[in-house]
Amino acid sequence: MTQELRIALAGLGTVGTGVVRLLEENADEIRARAGRDIRITAVSARDRTRDRGIDIASYAWEDEMAQLAARSDVDVVVELVGGSDGPALALARGALEGGKHLVTANKAMIAHHGAELAAQAEQAGVSLQFEAAVAGGIPVLKGLREGAAANRVERVYGILNGTSNYILSAMEKTGRDFTDILADAQELGYAEADPTFDIEGVDAAHKLAILAAIAFGTRPDFGAVETGGISGVRAADIAQADALGYVIRLIGMTDCAAGEDGKPRLFQRVQPYLVPKSHPLAAVDGPTNAVVVEGNFAGRLLFQGAGAGDGPTASAVVADLVDIARGNPAAPFGLPVASLASSSPADTAERRNRAYLRFVVSDRPGVMAELTAAMRDAGVSIESLIQHGKPEEAGDVLVAIVTHEGPERTVSDALAALAQSDCIAEPPLVLRVLG
Amino acid sequence: MTQELRIALAGLGTVGTGVVRLLEENADEIRARAGRDIRITAVSARDRTRDRGIDIASYAWEDEMAQLAARSDVDVVVELVGGSDGPALALARGALEGGKHLVTANKAMIAHHGAELAAQAEQAGVSLQFEAAVAGGIPVLKGLREGAAANRVERVYGILNGTSNYILSAMEKTGRDFTDILADAQELGYAEADPTFDIEGVDAAHKLAILAAIAFGTRPDFGAVETGGISGVRAADIAQADALGYVIRLIGMTDCAAGEDGKPRLFQRVQPYLVPKSHPLAAVDGPTNAVVVEGNFAGRLLFQGAGAGDGPTASAVVADLVDIARGNPAAPFGLPVASLASSSPADTAERRNRAYLRFVVSDRPGVMAELTAAMRDAGVSIESLIQHGKPEEAGDVLVAIVTHEGPERTVSDALAALAQSDCIAEPPLVLRVLG
Repeated sequence: MTQELRIALAGLGTVGTGVVRLLEENADEIRARAGRDIRITAVSARDRTRDRGIDIASYAWEDEMAQLAARSDVDVVVELVGGSDGPALALARGALEGGKHLVTANKAMIAHHGAELAAQAEQAGVSLQFEAAVAGGIPVLKGLREGAAANRVERVYGILNGTSNYILSAMEKTGRDFTDILADAQELGYAEADPTFDIEGVDAAHKLAILAAIAFGTRPDFGAVETGGISGVRAADIAQADALGYVIRLIGMTDCAAGEDGKPRLFQRVQPYLVPKSHPLAAVDGPTNAVVVEGNFAGRLLFQGAGAGDGPTASAVVADLVDIARGNPAAPFGLPVASLASSSPADTAERRNRAYLRFVVSDRPGVMAELTAAMRDAGVSIESLIQHGKPEEAGDVLVAIVTHEGPERTVSDALAALAQSDCIAEPPLVLRVLG
Repeated sequence: MTQELRIALAGLGTVGTGVVRLLEENADEIRARAGRDIRITAVSARDRTRDRGIDIASYAWEDEMAQLAARSDVDVVVELVGGSDGPALALARGALEGGKHLVTANKAMIAHHGAELAAQAEQAGVSLQFEAAVAGGIPVLKGLREGAAANRVERVYGILNGTSNYILSAMEKTGRDFTDILADAQELGYAEADPTFDIEGVDAAHKLAILAAIAFGTRPDFGAVETGGISGVRAADIAQADALGYVIRLIGMTDCAAGEDGKPRLFQRVQPYLVPKSHPLAAVDGPTNAVVVEGNFAGRLLFQGAGAGDGPTASAVVADLVDIARGNPAAPFGLPVASLASSSPADTAERRNRAYLRFVVSDRPGVMAELTAAMRDAGVSIESLIQHGKPEEAGDVLVAIVTHEGPERTVSDALAALAQSDCIAEPPLVLRVLG
């Protein structure tokens, strides 16, 4: 154990340079805690000469990233390139094939190919770790896999995308609309030029699929995540929610129950939720992430911190390296891959919750009667209804409804009945209330 | 690794019975995650026949707790008896001497004797784990030791005592005074018949000493924790704090810096703090615990959950057992004992912060002039001052002062100058503002 642990780094973007800086700045602490030095021996990135504010002259350079996996002076390959397939996946496979440990921050790759890679790691007798793939610097995978290891996990949910949370909390504070705030966020670097993955829930869905697999001992099933984003949320929705005692947060939520055949039915949803103001997640604003793990003995555990950024992500990457240096043999998903169950998606028709429905309707007599009759006929019980906008004005108005708890099926039925109505000006927004 | 892990349980109070229930109810999950069965083989408690709602007939019974350490059918001794010395310590030493792993929830014992026991465990090549000793079900020791392992820890602070937090948040909600709420808390089971350890900060100080040792790689030094409690906090203080934008929480706070000789100067304080309402700890109410770890790369990590109770504490105890079953070789304090530094207590005289000072003064002319002159002469700069109470009434009134940031020395000097004043009716309350 006194030999140094030798690292190859693929990708020198913000996270990669963060890892270089961290290993340098905290070298003393890391040596003491890991029991040996952790040293970068080789790196690869797109551009060798770009100024990154770090000195990479002492590391061997590989033009071809895949070559890192073949080097004899490397014990661990750290993949920080991104993308679910392509070069990242080729490197990951190559590294494990070559008997090297693999550490990655690549949520898309793990969500899509995690089980395959974990099986390969198991066979090769090496570690596969990806703490940085979920919730940045927050050690939530470790918390779930090890800290909560004694529990039957009842559900896991949280704020998994910093960009969306930044936008929603900025909308909340300023009263401004989505597109305005998105433009600001892009300017400030909180949102990317193409923000689709963040604002449409895909990034959160990647993370949720990983959390679900670890929580419930199932194979990651990204394809089955019901995925929605925040682009349909208006300032008016946030104002209605506020008036009713809620904030709106993009939440990834997962739980799991045995079906009639005994096989697991996995519920995975990413969607804006109405979060009661008294709930700890309501106080989470800006680009922060927070994950709640509910265990049958631990109760409600909350893990909160920075969900992205070079420092926090590098912190998680290097925590994995320290674990490997210490010889900690954690299974990536908490169980041997052969023990991971195949799940089916849960049927949500009978899932009970309260819903928030927002309609944009023509402002004319009879509209409210049509809306409420459709609710009644489908068996949806209305808890509160706010008609937003001044009825004397011409044009469309907003109607927001919060339902009593009931099966999701009834809401779907009501919306189906209203789908052909000419009083509905655009597709309604349907959110759930976090209970 | 496929052999079962055999447990001896010392103590069958609420936590002990919780562990028995957990190992039974979650046996399938634990077997899958640990890779083998975890089975209780022997137990010991004060009273064999008491009805605990669990069946202990299948476990060997030892009248003498110490005998558990001598049994050949035991791999791990779980000590849930409590007390820093006496039978608990004797059992712990005996178990490690006998080459058995030791898991304990005993914060007092670890705060006082942790380094000695860790050294003994190291020599014997066995594990010593005590996740349940700090913050109940929250896996914060693991989070700090492993999750934040890549960081230079800048400070650790948090709400470490559920009883105090319950009382303070109940005072906040009801406006009632400490003694009233304490009586309620005792009736409801949130406070013990003798609540001294909880309300005077001793319990939190035990936990803080353990957190500090892991965070900074120092030997636990409970004796050096500056310890204060909540019994001096009045409803009026909470009202003043509220008016100024704060809540009051009992906070354990630790940081560490090298002294001029290069040796660590450890700051450890348990005291009620004024917490800005926008800080995540301000939203933590009831018997919840929450710990913030600030790392130089991870930024601010928050771990929150139930700080006590049979379920959460059992969850942490069994997480340690799962770790042992998996063969995870974590050093109890994150470093080999020989590498733990001896620290000196930090000198707080030059420590800069904002202070809350509350005086009970005679209601007569000249008092305010005397108070403020003492502040001025000591170099204390006043940010806000509230005189509470109706000046036309006879008797004493409250004066609350929040200072600008400055060295603690100046506040001490001002109080020393006022110590002999006959206008001060009782010793002033001095709190700090969490910054």
